[in-house]
Amino acid sequence: MIQRHGRSSLELINRPSVLSWGAVVGKNEGEGPLKNEFDKIYYDSGASQETWEKSESFFQQHAFMEAIEKGSIHPHDIDIMFSGDLLNQCISSSFGLLEFNVPYLGQYGACSTMAQTLLLSGLFVNGEIADTAAAVTASHFCSAERQFRFPLEYGGQRTPTAQRTVTGGGCAIVGKHTEGKPYINAVHVGTMVDLGIKDANNMGAAMAPAAARSISDFILDTDTKPSDYDLILTGDLGEVGSKLLCELMLNDGIDIRKNHNDCGLLIYDREKQDVHAGGSGCGCAASVLCSHILNSISEGRLKNVIFAATGALMSPTSSQQGDSIPGICHIVNLKAE
Amino acid sequence: MIQRHGRSSLELINRPSVLSWGAVVGKNEGEGPLKNEFDKIYYDSGASQETWEKSESFFQQHAFMEAIEKGSIHPHDIDIMFSGDLLNQCISSSFGLLEFNVPYLGQYGACSTMAQTLLLSGLFVNGEIADTAAAVTASHFCSAERQFRFPLEYGGQRTPTAQRTVTGGGCAIVGKHTEGKPYINAVHVGTMVDLGIKDANNMGAAMAPAAARSISDFILDTDTKPSDYDLILTGDLGEVGSKLLCELMLNDGIDIRKNHNDCGLLIYDREKQDVHAGGSGCGCAASVLCSHILNSISEGRLKNVIFAATGALMSPTSSQQGDSIPGICHIVNLKAE
Repeated sequence: MIQRHGRSSLELINRPSVLSWGAVVGKNEGEGPLKNEFDKIYYDSGASQETWEKSESFFQQHAFMEAIEKGSIHPHDIDIMFSGDLLNQCISSSFGLLEFNVPYLGQYGACSTMAQTLLLSGLFVNGEIADTAAAVTASHFCSAERQFRFPLEYGGQRTPTAQRTVTGGGCAIVGKHTEGKPYINAVHVGTMVDLGIKDANNMGAAMAPAAARSISDFILDTDTKPSDYDLILTGDLGEVGSKLLCELMLNDGIDIRKNHNDCGLLIYDREKQDVHAGGSGCGCAASVLCSHILNSISEGRLKNVIFAATGALMSPTSSQQGDSIPGICHIVNLKAE
Repeated sequence: MIQRHGRSSLELINRPSVLSWGAVVGKNEGEGPLKNEFDKIYYDSGASQETWEKSESFFQQHAFMEAIEKGSIHPHDIDIMFSGDLLNQCISSSFGLLEFNVPYLGQYGACSTMAQTLLLSGLFVNGEIADTAAAVTASHFCSAERQFRFPLEYGGQRTPTAQRTVTGGGCAIVGKHTEGKPYINAVHVGTMVDLGIKDANNMGAAMAPAAARSISDFILDTDTKPSDYDLILTGDLGEVGSKLLCELMLNDGIDIRKNHNDCGLLIYDREKQDVHAGGSGCGCAASVLCSHILNSISEGRLKNVIFAATGALMSPTSSQQGDSIPGICHIVNLKAE
């Protein structure tokens, strides 16, 4: 049922399918190049909620609702839900998903959460631990700014290497292998990597080494090469981190420049939108994967994709205490049926 | 390999074993009734670290080190590590466990983390996703007070229903079925339950309904009765939550009063130690399970234990915004060989 390659690359022999997916985003994301791919765009990014944290919960909740409605699935038919987010104690997940009454395992992978929840969903369905599993996450620009940087009212200037936290959420429902649906061919569980970067305004650079390690390991473990994949898609390295990733991998003799892209670069039009180095946040990889990417695999435009979402495992407290920023990168290899 | 009972009670047919376990605690815990069961007691609860957050990382790190040393296991032989904690963005896990270079999936289950990480370890080994898995967590009184309540210097008075966050950590290493070792017979993934309790100084009451639901569901799903178990051990309901749990279950016709106990009541001597309603925090269930309980199962004093750790899925922000406190309870059913 499972074939292990190397230490943590896992081939899912039962090929669980992504049965349905949903992505909901805010105004800025809805004005970007993927605007026609999202299920819903809320031009009021607060989504009429009392607080930014509740808005983030709303995006998590509505991503899940889009996914189950599109798949004609009742929450009661979902055996397990994996979810997490960037808010302290992951409250956008718990409050956003409470009402659906689904067995729940909270995850913390920072911006890698979409890959982490999807890989666990894949492993659970592949191993017949669950028939149907949900992977959900979201982020919100305003709650992230308040928690990680400055309250919006402060009007702080952002550095050119800073990325913009995506307001949006994504959900993928995984079930038994189903013809015509994208399926999970393999996954890779990342190991934390810390090269000593301490600049919390340059997350891309902090996470790139973890991405390089996981992608290299996965390619070597599975005895494949970059050209086997239509797309090697990182989560949210943005411009700085993406360049660094390609350089780091080239140093190791692996050239991914031709087929690498990054969710943080895809979601905004950086010429027209003021987003500095690109998008970030759990909702970045989630809303791009659960719209444009899964749509493209489903419609045959992409056949074999490495989805490698990265996370920075720091907090404002650890940064204030002078700690560096450990990164992690989890991988889900998605294929067209 | 897996037998599913009900929606989320899972019987692990391959009976993965807990190969080794370790628990390290601070001064107060080391002066309590379990003092002879812990692997190490640090009478300087700061463990010579610069900050309380780094002390918490230290306890996480040293719990893991005790467990692998006692099991004569090298970190490289561990295929996957599940860990989480209560600090914002789970930094005591990431910084404490970074150096071991083990594939890592961060978890967020608040005080239920020991059960959540152990059930995932059990499922991964049972399903041959990993040969060896580590479940780790810790908490620290001083970092928790600062983050969730008041800085220690403030000298705030605590309410009688408040619990004391345990300074300590626990780690369990799970591997293939091994004669003479405690094994994981079954697990249950909890569902969030929110009965509207809003008092952040009464976590036991907030979590009791989730414990009642998970324990009832598990007992019904597996067609067992309370008297089949030597011990039904909740994580950290403390005095108030434990009473409430027994009442709630009695209302449903299930009497667990004779064999229920709680890690938060076991770890301190509430007559002599000023701990109000008992212990709490991820490190409470972790340090009690990974010392007294696993020792007792290993030595045959306990044969069949329900370990039901509870978590409160709130944050100071959600409480300040007037939200209630959702609870969750995950279960690991441990048996003597």
